[in-house]
Amino acid sequence: MDITLSIPDWVTSEIAELPTHFPTLEDRMTQVIRFSQKNFINKTGGPFAAGIFEKESGKLIAMGVNRVVPSNCSSAHAEIMALSTAQKILGTFDLGGEGLPDHQIVINGQPCAMCFGSIPWSGVRSVVTAAMGYEVEALTGFDEGPVHPNWIHELEKRGIEVITDVMRAEACTVLAQFGRTGQLVYNGRLGGA
Amino acid sequence: MDITLSIPDWVTSEIAELPTHFPTLEDRMTQVIRFSQKNFINKTGGPFAAGIFEKESGKLIAMGVNRVVPSNCSSAHAEIMALSTAQKILGTFDLGGEGLPDHQIVINGQPCAMCFGSIPWSGVRSVVTAAMGYEVEALTGFDEGPVHPNWIHELEKRGIEVITDVMRAEACTVLAQFGRTGQLVYNGRLGGA
Repeated sequence: MDITLSIPDWVTSEIAELPTHFPTLEDRMTQVIRFSQKNFINKTGGPFAAGIFEKESGKLIAMGVNRVVPSNCSSAHAEIMALSTAQKILGTFDLGGEGLPDHQIVINGQPCAMCFGSIPWSGVRSVVTAAMGYEVEALTGFDEGPVHPNWIHELEKRGIEVITDVMRAEACTVLAQFGRTGQLVYNGRLGGA
Repeated sequence: MDITLSIPDWVTSEIAELPTHFPTLEDRMTQVIRFSQKNFINKTGGPFAAGIFEKESGKLIAMGVNRVVPSNCSSAHAEIMALSTAQKILGTFDLGGEGLPDHQIVINGQPCAMCFGSIPWSGVRSVVTAAMGYEVEALTGFDEGPVHPNWIHELEKRGIEVITDVMRAEACTVLAQFGRTGQLVYNGRLGGA
């Protein structure tokens, strides 16, 4: 029995056309926001994307987008897709493993409770976000779930840098655009609580 | 680009030999603990298993085991494997969707921060655990991560029943057996914090 999750072909094609490196945080977030927008415009998933970059060089390792509905898999969030793809490409379950450069995850919104918890396991050393959790919820209707009340401190305690508010307004504009499409907002209780 | 996670063949073979239904919580947890033990004895992953059952009938839908190291995927925890497999089998990202019976996840240990966060998204209506988080950590060396301080209340608030302490001693015995094997304990910071 296999579970197969796929990155859409348009993501792979677009990455092939991009530069290999993105020097600044704004360069990185610009791409992540663009992929978050194309994902719902192309109807390949929800309005979320996450990129894995080498922190110092800015080399793009992997780009994940939300795939919950097309994959019939509630865990196929953008962050899980990005981390899993980067780990497959690098051949390790630990992006912080010996001999590897520091890796950074760049996300268009604050991670939900699950994706927050996935970060310490992944080995990334840096997290960069745009929209805050309450903005994601207000603009899209998605539920961030039971996020740890001190999520930033909990990551920092584990040696993981957290940088918020990078292109926050731009990310919110795209989330609001999604909100106006009327596309499905799933919350794991479509059958009623 | 695909990410493929696999349930080991021995799991599929063993499930085929089992009854289809497990009436009591102890019947269900007995199987989950047995799979958690066979997983490290067979060297197919860490000492964790999770079963998805229909809550009322006790029908076994899917059994997941930890696959982090063999899959090079830090998110391939037993709970994620079990939920994703059940969702694939039932053809939905929402195990609480309309027309479905209530589903229950039965786990040999308290879920880590990530798996805790995955539960509200999954649509399960009931969570059953054996070992507590501090026991998992003390007996195996695995880190449960930044679990929400009020994790039980946060699930209950969302209409998800939580039942702890089912065959806790039996689960701890198996975790202690794993601890004595000296097998790899990964924590996403093998390269140092």
